[in-house]
Amino acid sequence: MNTEGLLATRMARLKSSAIRELLKQSQMEGVISLAGGIPSSALFDFEGLAQATQKAITEKPELAFQYGLTEGSYGLRARIVELCETRGIHATPEDVVVTAGSQQALDLVMRAVVNPDDVFVVERPTYLAALQTLELAEANLLSVGSDGDGMKVDELAEMLKTRKIKGVYVVPTFGNPSGVTLSQARREQLVKLAAEHQFLIVEDDPYGEIRFTDERLPTLYALSKSLYGHADNIIYTSTFSKILAPGLRLGWVIMPQWLLNKVAIIKQAADLHASSLSQTVAEYYLGLGRLDQQIETIRAAYKKKCAVLAELLERELGHVLTFEYPKGGMFLWARFREPRNCTEWMKETLKQGVVFVPGEFFYADNPDHSTFRISFATATEAQLHEAVARLKRAL
Amino acid sequence: MNTEGLLATRMARLKSSAIRELLKQSQMEGVISLAGGIPSSALFDFEGLAQATQKAITEKPELAFQYGLTEGSYGLRARIVELCETRGIHATPEDVVVTAGSQQALDLVMRAVVNPDDVFVVERPTYLAALQTLELAEANLLSVGSDGDGMKVDELAEMLKTRKIKGVYVVPTFGNPSGVTLSQARREQLVKLAAEHQFLIVEDDPYGEIRFTDERLPTLYALSKSLYGHADNIIYTSTFSKILAPGLRLGWVIMPQWLLNKVAIIKQAADLHASSLSQTVAEYYLGLGRLDQQIETIRAAYKKKCAVLAELLERELGHVLTFEYPKGGMFLWARFREPRNCTEWMKETLKQGVVFVPGEFFYADNPDHSTFRISFATATEAQLHEAVARLKRAL
Repeated sequence: MNTEGLLATRMARLKSSAIRELLKQSQMEGVISLAGGIPSSALFDFEGLAQATQKAITEKPELAFQYGLTEGSYGLRARIVELCETRGIHATPEDVVVTAGSQQALDLVMRAVVNPDDVFVVERPTYLAALQTLELAEANLLSVGSDGDGMKVDELAEMLKTRKIKGVYVVPTFGNPSGVTLSQARREQLVKLAAEHQFLIVEDDPYGEIRFTDERLPTLYALSKSLYGHADNIIYTSTFSKILAPGLRLGWVIMPQWLLNKVAIIKQAADLHASSLSQTVAEYYLGLGRLDQQIETIRAAYKKKCAVLAELLERELGHVLTFEYPKGGMFLWARFREPRNCTEWMKETLKQGVVFVPGEFFYADNPDHSTFRISFATATEAQLHEAVARLKRAL
Repeated sequence: MNTEGLLATRMARLKSSAIRELLKQSQMEGVISLAGGIPSSALFDFEGLAQATQKAITEKPELAFQYGLTEGSYGLRARIVELCETRGIHATPEDVVVTAGSQQALDLVMRAVVNPDDVFVVERPTYLAALQTLELAEANLLSVGSDGDGMKVDELAEMLKTRKIKGVYVVPTFGNPSGVTLSQARREQLVKLAAEHQFLIVEDDPYGEIRFTDERLPTLYALSKSLYGHADNIIYTSTFSKILAPGLRLGWVIMPQWLLNKVAIIKQAADLHASSLSQTVAEYYLGLGRLDQQIETIRAAYKKKCAVLAELLERELGHVLTFEYPKGGMFLWARFREPRNCTEWMKETLKQGVVFVPGEFFYADNPDHSTFRISFATATEAQLHEAVARLKRAL
């Protein structure tokens, strides 16, 4: 094979260039962006973050500014384990690697487990940047559909009758971009399939805490432990980006030891370890006991914004759009009732001063061009009103 | 090809597991470690770092805790450009990507430019973790020797008569592990060869500022610009780890636009961007105008320690060891006059309570087992005295 060609192909398939170009245009003055998966900094707990930072530089400056362990500081890993307990995940600090956001967790895990042409299965649609890590790892990407109950696990079961797969990547709770949640029945079915057919599940859980109802489904990690007494083929990743502060660039991944050792070696070559300053700040922040209240604040604010957006969309654009009502997270996924290319349409909405992410970028294959993703996290309620009016004018 | 085999091979070649195991043993109480390339935290400018951190969280909290640009914050890139000016490097913020230490710069660049089996040439010995990034990128690693004037560029010229190469990785100034500096004549020869044979030079410059003499050679980047009016095939990387604080995990890479766009796309998939908190702190720190004094402090302290170590080694072990006297940096590279396996020997020195890094880990091929690397940066002078006495007892 022409290796120059391989790299060219690999790069060309990375859809981010196109989307980056599109979104660059959106940074013009007066444009309302519903595009990024960016938490609202108006909700950040700056007071708590400042307290934690103050403690980091006065009480543990040597830790905050010196090299640290590749796996992450033991203190932060212990705090992460406590946090995971509240999610029904029982782990030890030795099961955790602290990463530069869950984005890095995905990249490291894919580099560690995917050999070129290994089959990895994703939802249709799925998280754009997970597709990028899988494509960089040269996975053979296959996809199954999803509906209001999340990934169609039946389709996966059908696929497994004829194909051997390496793994499944899934955002089971308040998915990105779809906003939907994998049902209890499908969760059990997926975990059982993974055990039976011996494939990995990469469970990406950035939004699980941002729920708008009391419903709380078990993680795939916890389900596997309760069904089989272990989670040897489940890789659970989460992040502080959506519940605390993305600028810290801190996420984590919980995985079995056979994989953890590989991931640590690759991480050593990739960046040695996550920012010690960020880690020390996060450790102190978790020690302040403010995170629960902060999550409540985020839940209430996003729930409100989501309701405002959904009501506006229903009222103003319900005749042309359908969507599932999100029960949590940051995203609403809309589809035109009649076929429409949303990438083309965005050129019109940009003229009106509003942007989103066209749905096609979230597909490994068979894109539905009539879809688009709206983030309701960053905009104010007034901006949401104005944004929907602009979308309507662009019809 | 059995893909499971490919991954296994790739992982097995990563030498870090072995060295990590060895060095874990060295963390026992009472053991003096001359192993790590760890700057002395006793020299950190904690006062300046605290001032900068305070400014970050009070003046720009939204910048410090929110997502940022993949290439790095514009403010920090502008400060980096100013810093590079003092090194004779003329660049613009648009030429810079801020990375998680220069370690990440190496990993991203190798992922962007190396296709499997592309030939990359390194010095013998060279930086361990650069070898890891090249091996993860599945480069075909070749090596040329080095002496007191650095990489033997004549050997490279000879190789180029029969082989096409993708690039050369080199630490031209105060090399790791060798401590030696590439001479002016060889710098020019290397840059000319790269232009003539159209290969890339990855110029890794973490230690260039830590010089013990007034001698200052031009960077390969600057040489290329002065010879050809451009540096289109030079990738220059440096870091704040050795001159400011490694815990920030901040380095940078200056490269031509064709490559920068690829690196940015890969970085987006790898971790989105470097810690915003670290970046904001570094930007404010550079704005304080304290870095020059801090570098002077480090130079003076390391120069003193280096002199102490060299004198002790000469006096106590000169009958069995030879070494080049470092003119800067953090490392002294020693060789036994008679063949000796230093990995084996370290088991003896560990019993005496002192460790270093056995030289063999720094070779892509043809390791010289009689070599070892000593870092003089972390230990106190008293510890250096004791360490050399222990090395002597282990003979």
